[in-house]
This record gives sequence, C-alpha cells and structure tokens, in this order.
Amino acid sequence: MVNPVEMEQGDQAEAPLFSPSLQAIPMPGIRRMINTAAGMEDVIHLSIGQPDFPTPQPIVEAHIDALREGYTGYTMDAGLPELLSELARYYSKRYDRELTEDNFLVTTGATEAMYLALTATAAPGRQFIVTDPTFLLYAPLIRMNGGEVKVIPTRPEHGHQVDPQEVIDAIGMRTFAIVLNSPSNPSGAVYPRETIEAIVQEAAYRGVYVFADEVYDHILLDEGMEFPSVINCASDLDHVMSVSSFSKTFSMAGMRIGWMISSQGAIKKLRRYHMFTTTVASTPAQWAGVAALKGDMTCVDDMNAEYRRRRDRVVELVSETPHLTGYVPQGAFYIFPSLPPRTDATDLALRMLEETGVCVIPGDAFGDTCSNAVRISFSNSMENIEEAFARMQPWLARQNF
Amino acid sequence: MVNPVEMEQGDQAEAPLFSPSLQAIPMPGIRRMINTAAGMEDVIHLSIGQPDFPTPQPIVEAHIDALREGYTGYTMDAGLPELLSELARYYSKRYDRELTEDNFLVTTGATEAMYLALTATAAPGRQFIVTDPTFLLYAPLIRMNGGEVKVIPTRPEHGHQVDPQEVIDAIGMRTFAIVLNSPSNPSGAVYPRETIEAIVQEAAYRGVYVFADEVYDHILLDEGMEFPSVINCASDLDHVMSVSSFSKTFSMAGMRIGWMISSQGAIKKLRRYHMFTTTVASTPAQWAGVAALKGDMTCVDDMNAEYRRRRDRVVELVSETPHLTGYVPQGAFYIFPSLPPRTDATDLALRMLEETGVCVIPGDAFGDTCSNAVRISFSNSMENIEEAFARMQPWLARQNF
Repeated sequence: MVNPVEMEQGDQAEAPLFSPSLQAIPMPGIRRMINTAAGMEDVIHLSIGQPDFPTPQPIVEAHIDALREGYTGYTMDAGLPELLSELARYYSKRYDRELTEDNFLVTTGATEAMYLALTATAAPGRQFIVTDPTFLLYAPLIRMNGGEVKVIPTRPEHGHQVDPQEVIDAIGMRTFAIVLNSPSNPSGAVYPRETIEAIVQEAAYRGVYVFADEVYDHILLDEGMEFPSVINCASDLDHVMSVSSFSKTFSMAGMRIGWMISSQGAIKKLRRYHMFTTTVASTPAQWAGVAALKGDMTCVDDMNAEYRRRRDRVVELVSETPHLTGYVPQGAFYIFPSLPPRTDATDLALRMLEETGVCVIPGDAFGDTCSNAVRISFSNSMENIEEAFARMQPWLARQNF
Repeated sequence: MVNPVEMEQGDQAEAPLFSPSLQAIPMPGIRRMINTAAGMEDVIHLSIGQPDFPTPQPIVEAHIDALREGYTGYTMDAGLPELLSELARYYSKRYDRELTEDNFLVTTGATEAMYLALTATAAPGRQFIVTDPTFLLYAPLIRMNGGEVKVIPTRPEHGHQVDPQEVIDAIGMRTFAIVLNSPSNPSGAVYPRETIEAIVQEAAYRGVYVFADEVYDHILLDEGMEFPSVINCASDLDHVMSVSSFSKTFSMAGMRIGWMISSQGAIKKLRRYHMFTTTVASTPAQWAGVAALKGDMTCVDDMNAEYRRRRDRVVELVSETPHLTGYVPQGAFYIFPSLPPRTDATDLALRMLEETGVCVIPGDAFGDTCSNAVRISFSNSMENIEEAFARMQPWLARQNF
C-alpha cells in the first residue's frame, strides 16, 4: 500500500502572494469618505488627525542648519546621541524619575515605536486588553502576530474614561499586556493619575505588561493639568513601555520622529529589531527634535491655548446639536460624540458629507463597540468649526433615528 | 475522574517579554569591533556602509525650501503625489516599461520596503532562496515570520556571481520566493541581464516570486554599463518586487526615503500595511527626492567616477595583499575578498583592528558560508585607502594560516 502522505501531489496551485497574517489589517472604512470628499468642492474637514499649526520657526531653522552642516548620513541605530541625551534630560525632569539615554529608542514616528512594541511581543496564546474606541493601530498588529484582543468598551456618558477596576477584573490567565492610549485618539479622554497608577501597579504585580501610546502627552486642555504617564506611575520600568513623538506637541508630523521609553533591557532588544524595520530615523529631523526639547515651550502653550478655546466651543456646539451626545474631552484635539443607539454612523457620515460638505470620521474606524459615534477633530480654525456646525445642526435635526 | 486538562494550573510563571520570533534576529557580530574601534585613536574605517560624499547641494536646497514652505505635515500614505509621479516618469524611461504612480510605494528607506515585502509574505511552509553572502536583512525577517531560508553560496573565484541554473535547480515544492541583491552588498557583484532574465522568467513560470534589493542600482563601476533590474527583465510585474532608495545614489542615507516597485495589486495591499509600520515617510525629504529625480545626473556620474577610480586601485591592492583572494566587483562600493579556507575572519579582523587600526567587516555578518572573508568598503578617500592597505599588507604577511 502506498502511504497517502508519500503520494506525488503534482505541482502546487499557485500560492497567493500575501501571508494570511495580513488579513488582520483592515481595509480603511473611511476610504469611501475620503474619495467622496476628494471629488467635492467646499468640504470642511473635521477629520484631520494632525495639528493645523505650522512647525515653530526655531525648530524649522534647526532642521535647516543640520542639512546645511551636512548631517545627511546615517546616525546611531538607537538615535542621534544628542537627541537621546535631550530626551533623557527632558523626561527625567518631566516625570521626576531618573532616565538615561539607554531608556530611549528613537523611531520613525510613534507609529514605528508602537509597531515594534506590539509585534515584538504579540504571539499565539497571549491576550492583550485594549479599550474601545481606541486608535486603530493596536488590535490589527496584535492579531497579525497571533495575539488575542480583549476589548473594554468606554462610553460618552463617562467621558470615555476607563474604570481601572474593570481593567483589573479583565486580567485573566491568558492576559499578557494592557494597551492604554491617554490622551485618547479618538475620545480626548485623559486618564487621571489614580487610574494609571491602579492599572500599572496591579499589572506589574500580576506580571502583565502595560504599553502606553502617549503621543498627545502635551496636549492637555484643562488649566494647570498635569500628565500622568505610565512612566511616572510605575514603580519600575520592567513592565511598561511608553511611546510618544514630536508630531503632535510641536506640529512636526511630517518629520517622522518618535520614541519609546522603557527599561534598558527592553530598549536594547528593540534597538536591534528597529535596525531591521527602518534602520534609523531621519538624522536632520532628529536635530530639529533636539532644538524642540532645548527651546522654551511657549510655542506649545500657545497651540494648547487655541486648542482649549476650540474645545470649549466644540463642547457647546455638540451639546446644541440634535441627536449628538457629547462630554468634555480633556486632551488631544478630538471629541467622539454618540448618535442614538444602533445608528449606522458610517452611512450617516457619508450622507452628511454628500449633503453638507462636512467630513467627520465614523466610529467604526476606532473599534467594534462604537459604530454609532463619530470623531470630530478641532484641528481646524474656529471659523471653519463654526461653519461646519452651522451646516450639521439643521441637517441632523431633519434626520430620523 | 477530573479531566487533567480542566485541572487548575495555579498562576502562570511570568512570561518573558519578547516573542520567540525575535530570536531570528541575530545580535550583531561586529559590535565588538565597533566598540573596540570606538576606544582607539587613528582608526581607518574600511567598514562604512554609506557614501562618503556630501548630499548634492540642489537636493539639500530643495529639502530646505520644503521646510520653509511649511511642508512639515503628513502626506498621502503611498507617498507624496509629486514624488510618485517623478518616480513613475523616471523609472518608466530607465526601464523602458510603462509604470504609473500606482506601481510605487514610498517608504522610510529601502529597509522598510524590504521589511514590508518579506514580512508580508513569509509564513510557515514557505521557502525563500537567498544567496550567501548577502545583505544581513533578509534571512532574519523571513525566519521571524516562520519562513524557511535556503542558501545558495557564491564564491570570489567567480566574482560572487550566481549561476542562474543553480538557482532554478534549487526551486522545489516549498519554494515561495527568491531574494536577489544586485549590485550586491557585500560582494559588489552585478548580475548580468542573462542571469536576471533567466531567474525571473523561470520563477514566473513556476509561480515563484522574486524580491530584488536594488538599492545600489546606480552605482555601476564599468564604463557604459547598463543595469538589468528585475523590473525590466520580467514579462509582467505580477511576480516581482524591486526595492531601491535615494540613500546610495544621491548620498541621502540619513533622509530615509526609499520605495518599492511592483504590480498595482501588490502595492495597494502594501500601502495599507505601511500605514501600520511607519504611517508615511518624511514629507520634506520626499520633496528633496523630487529634486533629485528632476535634476541632471552629473552629481551621480561624478560620484561614480570616483568610486570607479577607487575600485580599480582597491582591486590592485587586494591582489598585492598576502593571503587575500580578490576579484573585480562591478557595482556598489565593496569588495569581499577571501582569506585562506577555515580562517576565522571575525577573530582575524579584530586582531587586525587592534594591531593596525584598520577596520573591516568580517564575513559572518553576511551569511553562513563566508566566515573566511572580509568586506572592504571603498567609501573612503583614496588617501585613507592607500594608508589602510599599507598597514594591512605587512601585517597579513606576518600571519600564519
């Protein structure tokens, strides 16, 4: 008898090109909106995910100086030594904890930093707790690498705050890590110190890691607010990684410089992985970053004052808009109000775009439990914000839910 | 009876932080050399992997103009539209084949492009054929994602050329793709048109993909040489991806702009994946790239003329050096001569550095079959090259093998 396993199989059918793991990366639900908007005139974008301010001039000049001085070759894999020093100095002071150059890895934006953190750790059998709604990056990267995602929904009635006890109760035998994003994109929620402390301390005790996307760490919209980072709430850095960048704070999104803060052991390993994803980050843009950290922070304060003014007005406008349930976001430049339960916000946002020219991002882009919400960005002028709501309010009043 | 599977297991031991897949990324064998060199004075580096020329001035000025004009925010995920157009125009002409913007994806250097290509396709059960020696990126990325690497060794006696029939004979039931790197780092070999044509055509016929790292595509060291790319040797683009960048051609390594050329279907999918690795490439640096492609190529010709002069001299010097077996590299700025069989080049290079101050890269960094070779870069001045060989030749003459 021929063993069937040994029988000749003939030529294999042609393999598909891509690995099944790519299935975990969703096609963008907002593509149809962007395409529709591209074909229209007079669109007001409340969909923008980057600051609408120019990069502060001293930072631009430092970038130019670096180019003129010939800093156009590779730098060290972990980052430009001068930038690592400045980051260590700046964050040691900000977080009142001693950090050295070896606690930092400079990356191509916060995206690469989060990519490294999640793909270096996600694996079959490991469960990651992720809030919902949240920035669209995390769940696909976890699933791509065989990890499992457990979702904790947050609600506009609670300002999209997360209950730390709910997170702690969700930790189970398979839980490997918790992913936090504060200030949150899309909700603008900033978790208070008690929340962060409770989560990182219980997580460390249980041997669970906390990965924090803190890219909006400087955009805080209440007067005198302090930012509780996982870095200053953790007893040690063995179970935390924090990711941030220059993109939002200094309006440098197109320069693509971000970083990760973690234990020296974790950073050492990730430096090597980083060599294989992008080799190094832009050298002249890292010099621009040195200038940003060395400069005074008035430019940041000025941008924040304007975001705050817009936030206050947007909260008012949302509360006056029929069918929208809002709250007061405390960070970033977003609010994520809900429409009535079971509303298909994707369908509604598309019709609203077509009929009013106002472009917002439907909730589906940010999770599975918020398809009746929309993200409204106030990274646009007050004039455009006023005009957008003047169009949306009567239009929404006419809709049946 | 209690089912053992259902028995309580108690708390799990704390999980290690990193996924086992990271085991595939080797720690750098050359770290000890670099550390040793860092503590020494009067070191001559024949170890450099980037051009030693300044970025041409018109390109620097275009980068500065972009910064001054405020192009510091995100651009489109696939790349700056103006750069995509220029790439399509430039490569359509260079490769005599119609390419559109949709055949290109702009990335953070060629590294990210190759990273995307390999990690989006490598998976358990898929075998990749890789030449040896070759650039150190490919095998780890394939293995990290569960793929299998099959090595085809090349030899200095044949100028590190690959026999296309040997590659074709190596294609088996599990073979998914072939990775080519021409001009090669570390060998400087440029595969002739017949080699590329034979491989890509047989591969396409067998349903096997060819991924080509062509980052040295413009550094060709023989007069009047044409560059055979997989893009102009393939009947259609369905089974090929080509990766290149501005880094080597225009001495822009620190600006981190690369790209991939492939079928529109493959590019469409990889654009989405790219959003999750680094979001977008640097916007102002992409404007510098537009200027590079629009400018005249005299700057490239001038750099190549100097590389050629150095190559000719290095080939002479290697042939005069005791115990080194050389050949004539036709591209890039490297030669990869062999020491006698079974020499431990890692040990020898370290001793040579300590005793002569000349730093070269041992062969182990580039594969499993070339631990008796060293990579010598001629990205350094003729004066330094002469001095380095003046130190190496008497030192090597004194060694016993």
